[in-house]
Parts: sequence; structure tokens; C-alpha cells
Amino acid sequence: MTKENLSTCYNRIKPYIHKTPVLTSRLVNKQVGAEVFFKCENFQKTGAYKMRGATNAIMQLTKEQKRKGVLTHSSGNFAQALSLAAQSLNVKATIIMPSNSPKVKKNAVVEYGGNIIECKPTIEARQTLANKIAKETGASFIHPSNDPNVIMGQGTACLELLKEQPNLDSIFCPVGGGGLIAGSALAAHYFGYNCHVYGGEPFEADDAYRSLLSGKIETNKSVNTIADGLRTQLGHHNFPIIQNHVKQIIRVSENEIIEAMCFIWQRMKLIIEPSSAVAFAAVLKEKEQFKDKKIGIIISGGNVDINNLPFNN
Amino acid sequence: MTKENLSTCYNRIKPYIHKTPVLTSRLVNKQVGAEVFFKCENFQKTGAYKMRGATNAIMQLTKEQKRKGVLTHSSGNFAQALSLAAQSLNVKATIIMPSNSPKVKKNAVVEYGGNIIECKPTIEARQTLANKIAKETGASFIHPSNDPNVIMGQGTACLELLKEQPNLDSIFCPVGGGGLIAGSALAAHYFGYNCHVYGGEPFEADDAYRSLLSGKIETNKSVNTIADGLRTQLGHHNFPIIQNHVKQIIRVSENEIIEAMCFIWQRMKLIIEPSSAVAFAAVLKEKEQFKDKKIGIIISGGNVDINNLPFNN
Repeated sequence: MTKENLSTCYNRIKPYIHKTPVLTSRLVNKQVGAEVFFKCENFQKTGAYKMRGATNAIMQLTKEQKRKGVLTHSSGNFAQALSLAAQSLNVKATIIMPSNSPKVKKNAVVEYGGNIIECKPTIEARQTLANKIAKETGASFIHPSNDPNVIMGQGTACLELLKEQPNLDSIFCPVGGGGLIAGSALAAHYFGYNCHVYGGEPFEADDAYRSLLSGKIETNKSVNTIADGLRTQLGHHNFPIIQNHVKQIIRVSENEIIEAMCFIWQRMKLIIEPSSAVAFAAVLKEKEQFKDKKIGIIISGGNVDINNLPFNN
Repeated sequence: MTKENLSTCYNRIKPYIHKTPVLTSRLVNKQVGAEVFFKCENFQKTGAYKMRGATNAIMQLTKEQKRKGVLTHSSGNFAQALSLAAQSLNVKATIIMPSNSPKVKKNAVVEYGGNIIECKPTIEARQTLANKIAKETGASFIHPSNDPNVIMGQGTACLELLKEQPNLDSIFCPVGGGGLIAGSALAAHYFGYNCHVYGGEPFEADDAYRSLLSGKIETNKSVNTIADGLRTQLGHHNFPIIQNHVKQIIRVSENEIIEAMCFIWQRMKLIIEPSSAVAFAAVLKEKEQFKDKKIGIIISGGNVDINNLPFNN
């Protein structure tokens, strides 16, 4: 994945995505002791950056592949993204969703034209079902994070941020499957000036942190975190990029996630999902390290069920 | 208040305010059947458009007046705005607040350097106290809405929106004290092309609607609305402007306000306060009238207590 690949990818998907705003807050800067720039992918189509990778992946298929449709399994945001991207490109999308996915996310998939097939909430169940459907229909399976075309698409959020703020010292992303941080790390490597990429990860799903320590892909035994977008596993496409280009992964507790989310909601008036709050929580936790720096944070999404919030007591 | 007055006012306050983004949503457009542009003053400093009027009013004082400080009574957003505007301009601000104001708003006033004096939650109590303090300290009383300099300042949000979207057919504002809608009506009159201004008002505090009907300023007997920013009364400065330049005031129920607020939160990922939802509720209610039009909505603010929301059951 070269600098040119990333530029071409950005130009390819540009007509299908929003250029999201970059917002700042005097109060956040004061709190962090640094200049913080929020890349608001919660305002992206379908409410999350995933629209970028989904669009790129579908656009790279052959005409014949497009005719047979696309297929993924996703606990949420990639499901919506693939549905809308497919609809925009006149392709049929089948989405395998765990039966315990939030209702608000299931509804959105249907609204964006995706065809949901439910499965048990285990990695094995969804993989078996995906293989079965791909075999029967000839649909192209597109992984939510472990796919070079998806990774490049996700990296365009960071690319856009760097076009607007070329002098960022550091960029923070949440780490789930690793697509966003791998794409961002490539974008920062090619388009930043000495710009380092950091990950925020919940203690409760810290496979990426442990994988960097051990040098091989580790798995999560349980994923008991409020950050539902980060319950997934690293893959073999994004892990080497993370090893080569991510400076550090900072782990945060569930309380730190909720406090960070509450702060952004109350003070910045932005609806962000818990997974996005993980990146800001990581900045807050290590703020001494980033004093007086210029920091970018990818606000990955805003898909929460507002009837079921962690801080309305 | 001429076109030139408004331009000069805008240039005067520009260094002290945010140029807020204008956001759109495919889903909102589909729902309304029109093109809708949200002017996001919830991202304004202190979380509301009131920063504009407060800044303009203080900047118009003499050096001697500034030395003696400013004074207002406010149930919330103007209190925060005057506090921060005064702090930015190195002026002392005293804020008379009803004792039942939301805690989150009181805390913000203190944070912005305002000096709070509490009073009973009646119009008489706060007016008596304001007169007393003004007499004792020589502080200049600045009314939250019934003041020509405040009205002009508030109008600059609409002016900015029209600079970005010059071809709007209609602009919607919530109506409380009438400062925002009067300023917006002037801005649309001077800077729009055949652009009409509409107000949204709760049935539960419909003094402006009734005032337009009767031709004189009517008062609210009770103000039992969730839109806490709209519980105030029209004044003699803004009423004639509203009579001359506002096309229609559309009343909405409490349920319509909450539904509109919920829709904006869930679909646009914007934290808006109930008062802002009133303007969008008015659009939804009369959407047949505005089919295929280009509509601007001033999202007046985002100051809600996220620990006390109307839709988290």
C-alpha cells in the first residue's frame, strides 16, 4: 500500500462520502494542555468512518463480482456502511449480524437496504455462515477490518485531517479490528511530518496491546466493554502495519471511557459512541506525555441508542 | 437598525465568536421533503448563539461603563454568554439567576468567570434585584433579548448562514424573548433574496404567537415547557421587528419538541437543547408548506444536562 494507492483510493471514494468537519474546543484544549483537533466521522454517512472502507472495497470489485453482491459479518457500523455503500453503487448486500446487536443498528441496516441474516454471537458461528452463503450465492465476502482495500479506505479520514491540519504531532484512533488505526498509520506515515499514531484500547478487549508486546496476534478471551465497536480481533493484514507504524497503544478502563464520552457530549455537543470516547480517554490518561502538542483524534462514530445511555441516572 | 449597522456589528464581534458549521443530512431532507441547512450554534462558544449578542452589547459600552461592569438576569444561556463575553473583554459580569436554574448552567457561569446572585424564579423578583444592584454598583444592565445591540448580535448567526447559503427560501428560529428571531428577521430582510423568517414556539409559552394575533405584547400565564430557553417574554424592542419581518409563528406540542430533539440527536449526532428542537419541530409540522424549498434552521444551542434527558427510559 503506497502513498499513490492511498491518494487514488481517496479520489475514488470522494464522491460517495462526506468531507467531515474538524472541530476544536477551548475547554478541551485547557483540560488536555494541548491543541486538540477532532475529526468528526460521527457526521460521516451512516454515522461512522466505516463508510470509507466499505465504499473502496466494493468499488474495487469486477463487474461480475458486483453482480453477485457483497457479504459481511459485523456487530454494527460496518454493517450499515456496507449496506449504504452497496446501495449507492447498485450492488446487493447481505449482512450477517450477531443476534444480540443493538436494535438501533439492525434498523439502520434495513433502512440502508441491507439484507440481514442473524447468527449466534460467536466468531465461529458467523464465519461458518459467511462461508456457506458465499459458496451458495457467489457473493464477495468483505471483512470489516482485515482487508487491504478496507484499510486504505479507512485511512482517508486521517488523510483528510492531515490535509486540513498538516502539522499534527500525534493522531489518536480507537483500536478494534485494526482497520482504522492501520489506515491512519499509513496516512500519517505518507502524509504527516513526523506525525505519530497512537491507539486507545479498552483494558477489557486489549488484544492489540498484547499482540504488540508478544509480537504475534493475540485473542480476547472475553470482551466485556461498553465500546461495542472494539470487541473484534486484529487480523493478519492490519497487524504488521500496526507493528511498523503505530507508536503506542494506551489502555483505558470502562470508567475512563464513560467519563471521556460524557465530557465530549456535555462540552462539545457531539454525539459520539463509546468506541470513539476510547481515543479521547487515552489522550486524557497520558496528557503529560502530549503537553503543548498538536493532537488529532479520529472520532470514529456516533451510533448510540439514545434511549439506553450509560450516564442518565 | 440598518444593513450597515448589521454588517458593522458582525465585523466587530467576529474575533470573539466561532464561525459555526452548517450541516446537512440526507435523512432529514428525505423526512422533510426539502433541503435543510442546520446552522449549528450549539457549537458556538458557551454552547449557544447568545455569545453573539452579549459580545456586541458589551463592546458598545463606553470605557467608563465597562469599568463598572455588566449585569443581567437570565435563566441560562445568556448568563453563560455574558460571563464569557465579559471575561474576554476584561469586564466584570454579575448574573442574577433564578434559584431553580439547571445546575449545569450555574456551574458553567462560574467557570466563565461570572458572579452569580440567586433570586426567586419570578420576573418581578429578578427585576427588583437587578435595579437594586445597578443602582448600587453602577453596572450596566444588559437585557438577554430586549436590547437593540443584543438583537443585532444575535442576527449575525443568520447573516453567516446566508453568506454560506444565499438562496434560502425560509429560515426557522425558536422564539423565546424574541432576540434571535428579530435579529434573524433583520438579517434575512437585508441579506436574503426573498427569504422569509418563521418562528417555532411551544404551545405552552406562546406569547409571541398571541402577540402577533392581537397586535400587542401578550404575556404567558404559565410556561410549562421543556424548552427552558423559551420561557421568557417578548419585549418592546423586538416585537415591532417581528411584526414587520416575521412571516408566521408555528406552535408545537411538548411531544413534538421531544420527538424532534430525539430525531436530531439520533440521526444527526448533534446535541441540541429542547429550545432548538422547537424550530425543527415547526418545520416537520408544516412540511407540506415547505416542500422542495431550501430551508435554514438556526440550531440555537446545545446546553442540556445529559444526566437528565427526556428520552432515556
